[in-house]
This record gives sequence, structure tokens and C-alpha cells, in this order.
Amino acid sequence: MVLPPVLLELGSHQLEAAETLVEVGRFLVIFVAARAMAELMVRLQLPTILGELLAGVAIGVSGVHLLVPPELLTQLSAVPVDLVAHLADVPADTVQSLYAETFPSLQQVGRLGLYALLFLTGLECDLDELLAVGWQAITVAITGVLLPFTLGTLGLTTLFHLPLLLAIFAGAAMTATSIGITASVFSELKMLRSREGQIVIGAAVLDDILGIVILAVVVSLAGGGGFTLGPVLQLVAAAVLFVTVAVLLSRFAGPVFDQLLDQLKAPGEVVVAGFVVLTLCCFIAEAMGLEAALGAFAGGLILSGSNRSEAVQDTVKPLVALFATVFFVLIGIGMDLSVLNPFDPANREGLVVAAFLLVVAVVGKLAAGWSYRSQEPTNRLLVGLGMLPRGEVGLIFLGLGSQAHLLTPPLEAAILLMVIGTTFLAPILLRLVLSGQADHANATI
Amino acid sequence: MVLPPVLLELGSHQLEAAETLVEVGRFLVIFVAARAMAELMVRLQLPTILGELLAGVAIGVSGVHLLVPPELLTQLSAVPVDLVAHLADVPADTVQSLYAETFPSLQQVGRLGLYALLFLTGLECDLDELLAVGWQAITVAITGVLLPFTLGTLGLTTLFHLPLLLAIFAGAAMTATSIGITASVFSELKMLRSREGQIVIGAAVLDDILGIVILAVVVSLAGGGGFTLGPVLQLVAAAVLFVTVAVLLSRFAGPVFDQLLDQLKAPGEVVVAGFVVLTLCCFIAEAMGLEAALGAFAGGLILSGSNRSEAVQDTVKPLVALFATVFFVLIGIGMDLSVLNPFDPANREGLVVAAFLLVVAVVGKLAAGWSYRSQEPTNRLLVGLGMLPRGEVGLIFLGLGSQAHLLTPPLEAAILLMVIGTTFLAPILLRLVLSGQADHANATI
Repeated sequence: MVLPPVLLELGSHQLEAAETLVEVGRFLVIFVAARAMAELMVRLQLPTILGELLAGVAIGVSGVHLLVPPELLTQLSAVPVDLVAHLADVPADTVQSLYAETFPSLQQVGRLGLYALLFLTGLECDLDELLAVGWQAITVAITGVLLPFTLGTLGLTTLFHLPLLLAIFAGAAMTATSIGITASVFSELKMLRSREGQIVIGAAVLDDILGIVILAVVVSLAGGGGFTLGPVLQLVAAAVLFVTVAVLLSRFAGPVFDQLLDQLKAPGEVVVAGFVVLTLCCFIAEAMGLEAALGAFAGGLILSGSNRSEAVQDTVKPLVALFATVFFVLIGIGMDLSVLNPFDPANREGLVVAAFLLVVAVVGKLAAGWSYRSQEPTNRLLVGLGMLPRGEVGLIFLGLGSQAHLLTPPLEAAILLMVIGTTFLAPILLRLVLSGQADHANATI
Repeated sequence: MVLPPVLLELGSHQLEAAETLVEVGRFLVIFVAARAMAELMVRLQLPTILGELLAGVAIGVSGVHLLVPPELLTQLSAVPVDLVAHLADVPADTVQSLYAETFPSLQQVGRLGLYALLFLTGLECDLDELLAVGWQAITVAITGVLLPFTLGTLGLTTLFHLPLLLAIFAGAAMTATSIGITASVFSELKMLRSREGQIVIGAAVLDDILGIVILAVVVSLAGGGGFTLGPVLQLVAAAVLFVTVAVLLSRFAGPVFDQLLDQLKAPGEVVVAGFVVLTLCCFIAEAMGLEAALGAFAGGLILSGSNRSEAVQDTVKPLVALFATVFFVLIGIGMDLSVLNPFDPANREGLVVAAFLLVVAVVGKLAAGWSYRSQEPTNRLLVGLGMLPRGEVGLIFLGLGSQAHLLTPPLEAAILLMVIGTTFLAPILLRLVLSGQADHANATI
């Protein structure tokens, strides 16, 4: 570590103690806050991911400043800084410097969690489910991706005069439905095996793939600074090729992986072999100019056909529970919600943008419910509502965009509100409609 | 991250791609190398930890330079650097800088693995096993700690004129037996339930505790720079208090933890609750001026009495398989074995020190086999050999001492040889003696 001169004057033991206290204390704060809020959400029958996000907001820039991104140049809360300074016998300034110096390590742990989460999402993907509902799911998925993306991007550029890059990014953040949240609500109300449930899950699998492909293209392009047709086409082609190969491999790489695992005798073989596939796919994706996140997802997809898929999932889940939580909390801590304070007239435009995004995000997905043709009657409202929650993929857009310093604070807050709004509304509205339908079905019997 | 000026001139996208390639590629190299060597060791019936260490040596400073600690100022192998530079379209110098800048993140991941490993060791501790064999195990443990420590420290200061600090550190690195390695050999030869097996396991539990207490005291003192009686006594008292409280808590904190877990409804509760206990104990240990590693072990000890102890172990094992591997490989990459080249006369003293440490490490533990009183005949050679392998705790000493820049390269190499030598010899000699005894027993029947 390159230490600022002030740190070099202190004894190495105090410094190391202070650094360890900062690093360990940070984990402690993250896990206690995230768990407390997640438990609250479970009791309110809301998705736990909302809790992790709100925990970040509560302890971050918009809250009590227990944890703030050092690049925002806002002060940490004095209480924990003074505590560590007292315990390790170093000046408070030193604690602040150590905090800033070691923040990238925390971010890398969060990124490991993100990759583990996307790997798990890929592992849990059942491509057969998508094929079973076929065209209906494909139509819903594509409509539900295209509508919010084009409406959002066009609206933001024409109505609000945002730069094209930001508009495309915000539009893209609205594309992907969170399978996890929808599946858990449908399953809880015993509607997962209904025709509507099958269409929604199939469509969510596909729009996860589409969303992560769009993410890979948009983030890669955004880093380059501008949009010209050549690189866009090149990246889209690379992403499509990459995912196509992963889908094909998922059909016959499973047995090869299983055979390899049978050969491995040293303990921990399942998690290590899975992690090698994960990191290899991340490396290849990044080497092709795409995002490592796409590689992580593709790695999971490839192993989804393995007989050991469940065993790999079991070993990856603890990593997700710990480190994806870090990723989501870190998104929350950086959000400056004061830009949404309605009493400050300067914020009016930001608020209008936030409202616009939320409306487009809801309308675009609801409309997808009316996009498919069906011989049998299906509850199209249910399908539309099922596609609503953006959950983790929307947040991944937000997190990566924010880390790359692409977004303005008002746009970050607007995307956050869109993700929170859809993720919050979906389970509540689904439960209302589904329980209404269940009552109706019972009454008919 | 604070970037050197050269990095600021490049486009952010190339930089991020290069950074991700470096970080992901590093994991890939670590896991492939460690796994390959671990598989080789399993086939040679040797402990896998030797494989992880040798993998580090093979890819590190003493090997092909795929991964080297940046502070050693040695060059990385050009092949991977050029590959990443080519893929991300940045100069090779930039890749080297990014590698050095992001190395602390990798070290932090390794430290997480170390804490997870010690937490798991604590969780697996069965204090009842220790009580069952009582005084015999306690005598073996204490003799096996005191003999190598005093012989080693005295020898290094009087015969080789090493500074007291280094001598104490090297002496302390010889104190703790690796339970895992001994237990697996005894269990494989169905001798775990024999009287000798019970004494060895009981003694190993206790000397793990003693070893980690010594580690906490020595590393804390070493950071301060010198030895004066006051702080030593203070730290020993703090460490004894800390472990005593942990042992007492392990008797009745289990049910409290189980009740807490019953209240938690959000998924991932086992691993997160375990991790909160782990980080809290690390924080408290560090705040008391001890080592976070001692806290991690104590955290595991406290939860060892929980009904969910096995469930916690299952969630921690993937973390250990991944991240403790990183810790052990990182120890290996920093080892400069050229200081042991016998053809260079300048190395003669280092080699003699290495041989001295190995002899003291073997003799001290073998002698412990003859230290206890027993009414019934026991195979004392078997007990002594069982205490031989230093494995992970010896390596943890080496890793922490090396990270704190306490040790000279020849002493580092000598400790490494001592750990490798005892860990390598123990299973081979145990198998010889045990199979001889089994043959003898069969012949008697």
C-alpha cells in the first residue's frame, strides 16, 4: 500500500491495528445494518434486497455517515473514527486516511459478491423453462426490454435534454426483470406453475440475458466516452456471440465438468472448480471488451446443465449472502437523496426525471403483458405486474455506472427510486391481484 | 484508488479493463496452480496445504514470477503482463502499476481466508475431547510448546546471535501442531479412537490455543519494536483473559446463538450471523491490542457449542477453500528460496539455521511424547510423531511475520523449510509406524 507521508511517522503496530479495526469494523457495520433491514423487509413481506439497499442509504451519505465513498469527500461520522483512533492510539486523521486507502479492497470484495450473484443467477437459469413457454415468453421479454429502453432513452433526450450517453444508460437500467423477486411471490401464492407464472419466469430468464448483454455493451461503450456505430455493432456482435456460445456450452459442457469433478480428490473441489470456471469466463468476457459481469453470468449458464449444479449453488450461496450484500450496501451508501428533496426548487427537474423513469418502467413492463398472442385466456395484468420488479439487475447497472462516475447525482437518485419503486410495488400489487384471483377461483368452485 | 500520474493519461475504459483482467487473472492463476499441486499431494498421500504452499513457490519469486509481492521490487513474468497489456490496449508499465496498486485487495481477500480458516478451526474444536484425556494431553501439549520455543529461541540467540525479536518469532512458529493433518492420518489408518489418537488430538487442540495466544502476543509486541516486561505481561494477561472468556462462552453462548438464528427469517442467516460473530470477535481482539486472528479463532470456539455449529461450518468451508488458499499461495510467492542454495557460500549460515530449526521442531515434539505419565502402555513414538506437523499455524506465523516485514529472507526460508519438513515427514513416518503396529497387532491376533 502506498501510504501518505503522515502515516509513515507512526509505529507500524498502531497503523496495522488501526487498519484492521477499520476493515473489520466496516464489515461489522455492513452486516449488522443489512441484516437488520433485511429482517424488517421479510416481516413486511418485501424483498430483502430492498433492505440491503436501504441499510446502505441509512448508514451512508444520505444517512448517518457511518460508511461513505471516499471520493465524495464527505466526512465520516466522528464517533467510529474517534473510537478506532482511541483504540489503536493514532490521530483521527490517520483513521480517515486509512479508511480511504483501504476502500478499494472493500469494493473488490463487493465486486466478488456481484460476480458470485450473477454466477448463481446463471446456474439457476433453466433454459428449458424458457423453451416450454416459447414464443409467448419471448414476445413478453423482448417487448418488456424494448419499450422501457426506447421510451426512456427518447424521453430523457427529447423532454429533458440529457446527453445521449446518460439517457441510454438510464434506459438500459430499466430493461431487466428480477427473476428472484417475482419467482418468490408467485411461489409463495402457489402460482408458479400457472400459465402466467411460466410465461413470466421464462420471459424473466430471457430478459436477464438481454439486460446483461445490454449492460456489457453500454458500460463498455460508456467507458470509451462516445457512441459511434462501428464499436456499438462490434460490441453487440461480441456479446451475442459470447452468450450464444455459453447457451450452446450449457447443453453439453455439464458432463465434461462432472467428469472433471470426479477426478478431483482434494477437498473443496466443487467450489474451487466452479470458481475457476467463473473467473475464466470473466477473463474471457473482459478480454473481448465486454464486462466481467457478463462472463460471471455466462459461467453460471454453462454449468447450469451439470449434475453438480445444485452442489455448486450450495457452495456459492454463502459467498452471495456475504459479499453481494456488501455490493448492494455500497450502492446505497453512495446515494445522495438530498437531490430529491422536494422543498429545494433546484431539485424540481431531478424529481420530474425520477417520476418519469418510474412511470416508463411500470408502463413499459405492464404493456408487455398485452404483447403476446394466446389461444387460452390468461391474466395479462398478472404477467405485466410479474415483469415489474427490477431488483438486482437494475442495481447492478446503478452500481457499475456509479463506480465508473458516469451518472450525475440526480440521475443516480432517479434510477435508485425507479428500482426501489418497482421492486416495492411489484410484490404488493401481485399479492393484491393474485389473492383476488384466488378468491375468485374459490368462489367459482 | 490513488493512481500514479502515468495512469491518468489513459482512457478510463482501458484502465478498468486492465484492472479487472489483472484481478481476475490473478485469481485464476492462484486457483489453477493451487488445485493442480493439491491434487498431486493427495495422490502422494501428503497434506494438500503443502500443495498450496508449493504452488505459491512455483509461481512466485522462487519460481516463474507469475505472481510476486510488489514490495520485493522483482519483475513479474513478461508473458501475462504483455497479454493483459495487449488485451486492454494499455502499455505494459501500466499493467505493472495496476498490479502493484491492487495487490493489497488480494492480500485482504487472503486475510479474510485466514480468519475464516481460524474460525473454522475454532468451530471444530471439541473441548470435551481435550477434557476426556485430561492431564496426559495437557502435559504433552505444554511440553510440546515449551521445548521447541525455548530451545529454538535460546539456540538462535546464543548459537547464531540472532536479535531476540527474530529468535522469539522463529521459536514461536514451532509451537503449534496442525490438528487437521494429524487427525486425517490417524483417521485414515483407523487409529483416531485409540488412546494415542485421543492424546494427540486433545494435545493438538490445546496447543492450537496456546500457539494462537503466543502468536497474538508475539505479533503485537513485534510491531512495537522491542521487548520490555510490562507490555509482555499485559498482552499475555489480555490473551489469557480473552481465550478464557471464549472458552467459558463456548459452554453457554451456543443456545443464545441458536435462539437468535431461529428469529432470523431472511435467507443466508447462518453464514451472516456466523460472520457477525467472527468480525465482532476480531474487532474486540484487535481493540485489546491482540491479533484479529486470535479473535477469529475465539469466535469459532464460542460457537462450537451451538447446535448449528455444523451448519455454520458448512457455510464457512467454501470461504476457506477459496480464500485460505489465497493466503497460503501468497505466503509461497514471497519466499526467496535462492537464499538456501547450498552452492553459494554466503548462504551457509542460513542453511545451518534452517537445519537447526527443523531438528529442534522434530526433537521438541517427539520428546513431548515421553513427557506424560501413564498406567497403561502407550506408544510414545506415535504420540510424538502425531504432534510433529506444523501445517497451517506455522504458516500463519510465517505469513503474518512476513507481511509485517519482521523477518529476514534467510529466516523466512528457514521457517518455511521447518513447516514443510515437519508437515511432510509426519504423515510418512506416522504411516510407517502405524502400519507396523497394525501388522504387529494382526500378527498377535
